[in-house]
Amino acid sequence: MISPRVLRTRLERHLPILEWSRTYDRDTLTSDTVAAVIVTIMLIPQSLAYALLAGLPPEAGLYASILPLVAYAIFGTSRALAVGPVAVVSLMTAAAIGNLGLTSPAEYAAAAITLAFISGLILTVMGVFRLGFLANFLSHPVIAGFITASGVLIATSQMKHIFGIDAHGHALPELLGSLLESQHLTNPITLFIGLSTVGFLFWVRKGLKPLLLSTGMKPRLADILAKAGPVGAVAATTLATWGFGLHEKGVAIVGEVPMGLPPLTMPSLSPDLWGQLFVSALLISIIGFVESVSVAQTLAAKKRQRIVPDQELVGLGASNIAAAISGGYPVTGGFARSVVNFDAGAETPAAGAFTAIGILLAALLLTPLLYFLPKATLAATIIVAVLSLVDFSILTRTWRYSKIDFAAVAATIVLTLGFGVEMGVSAGVILSVGLFLYKTSRPHVAEVGLVPGTQHFRNILRHKVDTHPEMVTLRIDESLYFANARFLEDYVYNRIACDEPIRHVVLMCSAVNEIDVSALESLEAINLRLADLGIKLHLSEVKGPVMDRLKRSHFLDDLTGQVFLAQYDAYRALTGPHPVDSREAGE
Amino acid sequence: MISPRVLRTRLERHLPILEWSRTYDRDTLTSDTVAAVIVTIMLIPQSLAYALLAGLPPEAGLYASILPLVAYAIFGTSRALAVGPVAVVSLMTAAAIGNLGLTSPAEYAAAAITLAFISGLILTVMGVFRLGFLANFLSHPVIAGFITASGVLIATSQMKHIFGIDAHGHALPELLGSLLESQHLTNPITLFIGLSTVGFLFWVRKGLKPLLLSTGMKPRLADILAKAGPVGAVAATTLATWGFGLHEKGVAIVGEVPMGLPPLTMPSLSPDLWGQLFVSALLISIIGFVESVSVAQTLAAKKRQRIVPDQELVGLGASNIAAAISGGYPVTGGFARSVVNFDAGAETPAAGAFTAIGILLAALLLTPLLYFLPKATLAATIIVAVLSLVDFSILTRTWRYSKIDFAAVAATIVLTLGFGVEMGVSAGVILSVGLFLYKTSRPHVAEVGLVPGTQHFRNILRHKVDTHPEMVTLRIDESLYFANARFLEDYVYNRIACDEPIRHVVLMCSAVNEIDVSALESLEAINLRLADLGIKLHLSEVKGPVMDRLKRSHFLDDLTGQVFLAQYDAYRALTGPHPVDSREAGE
Repeated sequence: MISPRVLRTRLERHLPILEWSRTYDRDTLTSDTVAAVIVTIMLIPQSLAYALLAGLPPEAGLYASILPLVAYAIFGTSRALAVGPVAVVSLMTAAAIGNLGLTSPAEYAAAAITLAFISGLILTVMGVFRLGFLANFLSHPVIAGFITASGVLIATSQMKHIFGIDAHGHALPELLGSLLESQHLTNPITLFIGLSTVGFLFWVRKGLKPLLLSTGMKPRLADILAKAGPVGAVAATTLATWGFGLHEKGVAIVGEVPMGLPPLTMPSLSPDLWGQLFVSALLISIIGFVESVSVAQTLAAKKRQRIVPDQELVGLGASNIAAAISGGYPVTGGFARSVVNFDAGAETPAAGAFTAIGILLAALLLTPLLYFLPKATLAATIIVAVLSLVDFSILTRTWRYSKIDFAAVAATIVLTLGFGVEMGVSAGVILSVGLFLYKTSRPHVAEVGLVPGTQHFRNILRHKVDTHPEMVTLRIDESLYFANARFLEDYVYNRIACDEPIRHVVLMCSAVNEIDVSALESLEAINLRLADLGIKLHLSEVKGPVMDRLKRSHFLDDLTGQVFLAQYDAYRALTGPHPVDSREAGE
Repeated sequence: MISPRVLRTRLERHLPILEWSRTYDRDTLTSDTVAAVIVTIMLIPQSLAYALLAGLPPEAGLYASILPLVAYAIFGTSRALAVGPVAVVSLMTAAAIGNLGLTSPAEYAAAAITLAFISGLILTVMGVFRLGFLANFLSHPVIAGFITASGVLIATSQMKHIFGIDAHGHALPELLGSLLESQHLTNPITLFIGLSTVGFLFWVRKGLKPLLLSTGMKPRLADILAKAGPVGAVAATTLATWGFGLHEKGVAIVGEVPMGLPPLTMPSLSPDLWGQLFVSALLISIIGFVESVSVAQTLAAKKRQRIVPDQELVGLGASNIAAAISGGYPVTGGFARSVVNFDAGAETPAAGAFTAIGILLAALLLTPLLYFLPKATLAATIIVAVLSLVDFSILTRTWRYSKIDFAAVAATIVLTLGFGVEMGVSAGVILSVGLFLYKTSRPHVAEVGLVPGTQHFRNILRHKVDTHPEMVTLRIDESLYFANARFLEDYVYNRIACDEPIRHVVLMCSAVNEIDVSALESLEAINLRLADLGIKLHLSEVKGPVMDRLKRSHFLDDLTGQVFLAQYDAYRALTGPHPVDSREAGE
């Protein structure tokens, strides 16, 4: 029988809400409510805008900001993560569904719901089976390159709303081509609304807060007002459009947004559709998880809190399933929004649930006010938001530090821009893994000697060290496995093909973390070949786990030389007048 | 202008024949001729049998043993490799073309020619671009498992010729199913021929040579007679079939084999066919190269010779292109045949060219004699040949040594048997790489202390060592890269979450062969987080190439602690009364 205490601990592990709700008090409530109000103000225009980016009607953005936030509050472990529609995932949704060639908006919305559902299942399954480590194969530079390129794609795609022209496609050549070829004339009023909103939002971001502070306003209030910039732009341009009847002069507006609760929706169970969407859903899940978990970890670290990555997968999975049953589309934790939530004082995931109430009220009461909202305003909101994601400095940073990382980033950026998000991120992962394997297949090998006056051995090419003509010590700077086993053989054979009176070859294994069966066979071959030439093979500084394994093979019985605990012991024994014959075991 | 000497060296690199032919003399000629005679005797029945295994008429095997051998003699670097049809590649050819669902023998032969041509191009291109290292990603255990499973498949498929029944399919379930369901009655004469040939060949292999030696025969002659066993079986059963008219009593015979020179053939250039065959050709190329290069290296090592793997690719590529234009099918270096060639005294690749002359004479003169050759005899030859490839001991050896290698072998064997050769070998490669990545993503980390009386540091859990309560030293037994960057962060944070008065964390980097951008960002995060807690981060024993790279980043400027050349320096400095403040550069 399970004791109640064990049961509670287990339940809390899977339902983090049980843990934090026990200590919930009035102070926490106040903090969470204030944070929720600020995030709600920020989220209303964003959710509408990102839904348009995803190719969905604006209300889908609102719906994706209600139930998913409640689900995350129950299952998530981050206390500051703000879940909802985000730019990159919206772009990926548009690309995934765009590939299907659907024409009816109803079919499109059904596909978005199904995509959220599959993604929710993938995330939940990954969480339950603790597969969160898979996300580690997306390297930091690949993610940075991908986000930057996505930002460029998103900003370009939104140009159409500002210039009032047509643009389609999910990669740069097609987008730019359709922008340039467009036959429509630019609508001057749309252009004015778009450009002035972009200018206003940039000014709000850079100049408004200092201005307010200089008038003596409290920093906190100044912060909230600066965050309300997009809402101000939405209100002003909506009023102007209504007042001057701009929609009759060619300004595209959002139009009717249904008022009321999110609808109850059912994802499609068609195997065909699942087959077409599966890879997209997998990529969306992994990108969404990586983006979300990295911001959650950063924010948790600031308060010495911990997040549990595998439980985060369950939290995000539940959010996406919630999005699928309430007319939304794929969601994840947003970077900027989570930082705002944290800065505004959010203490627990309840802040997210309160934000959901705010958006619900908006969906119930405010939608008629959105009728005259110009699409150009939303496009301007998106452009300003995503341009902060664009950061090409990752190219110069990786170029300076590591050409291999640079190659992975550059390929990710070029392929994302040129062929779209799915191609870009897949190529980034495959290239990162491929380059890592290539690198480990040609390891660095250093010939080392004794640093005089110490027991320390370093590269003979970089340091002034003592060596002995009858003894060659090779430090192999890589685990030995199938991909570099033959390389090692070639290296040793080439090194001994010289006129020196070599009698001992010592392989210094301080950097060898693994010797697999292929490498073991190569070592056996080297041992035999050296024995033919009258040269003894020795090992030194073999690590514990590696030695344990070697003891289970015949290699140590056949080894012509010895295994030394320390390289210094090997040097003393093999270069001294009386070579030691006892074999010392490695660690 | 290039000097004649440089030109000659370059030409010799690409045309090894120019090198060895310069020192060719009468002694070499004698050795090569003797070896060629023995290999020819062995190759005639093998080439006919393997062609049947590949689903081709027997003459295709003869044609694949003429021009390809000449091409290898010109371009190959191994002095003992015997190129021609081999069992595993023949099986893979049957599987590749079987997938196409062709019914006419002419179309089938055309596909085999095209397969050889594509494979020849792939090998040549890999050689020219020095991509031979790609073959290293096929680990030794995966190859061993694949060869064993292929041997079982081949032996099973040949049962049909002995039991005189139907069998089809390229994987075990289908083969066994069709054998069991077969409605034909076993032909007793066929069965007798098949079983007695199998018995005879096993006896020749094990018992004939000792018997001949015991009669006082010279070892060399006894060896040659033992190798001629299959030819004896072919002659005896052919004579019996002709003499007793067994073909009229239901014994399947080879029938008419065209007499004359190999035909000049053209591979198909249909993009559809190339698309269907490309992956198969790639797998055949890699498996063929790996099998061939490993036997070539083993034999070269015995005489202190070297082979050049990238030039071997060109040699095998040329052989396959030669097979494609002369009515053959994919070829490679055979294991058993090369060993025979070597033991028989082959000194240069000319032995291969002389073998080609032997097979050409057979094609010109002997084909009428093959009319009455029972197919059961050829099947018996194949079964005895491939059963020597079957070696399930790789399972127990890997199980004892490494569960990860075992998993890769077991999956390769099961999938090859269950789903055929292409699935088996692909899964083996993907699994090997995947398991390697998984292993490196969760590296071994050891907390180390000073071995008393030395300057050497070992695992505190395995050795009696000195430590200091304010100092934690972690030796990371893996390169730091994107897949384990987060693991390292978690490990460090968990280690310092304790009651000890830790003031210094030292990361001992003797086994860290690489720090990529992702890992660098993790180190920066660890440094910052520890600084918040009043703990300094130090590095020790950072290797030269890693240190060079760190110096190109800002990390060393921000590092709260120091970089020590040796771990002993760190221990002395951080546990002594007066911590050293000067920062020593790593190697």
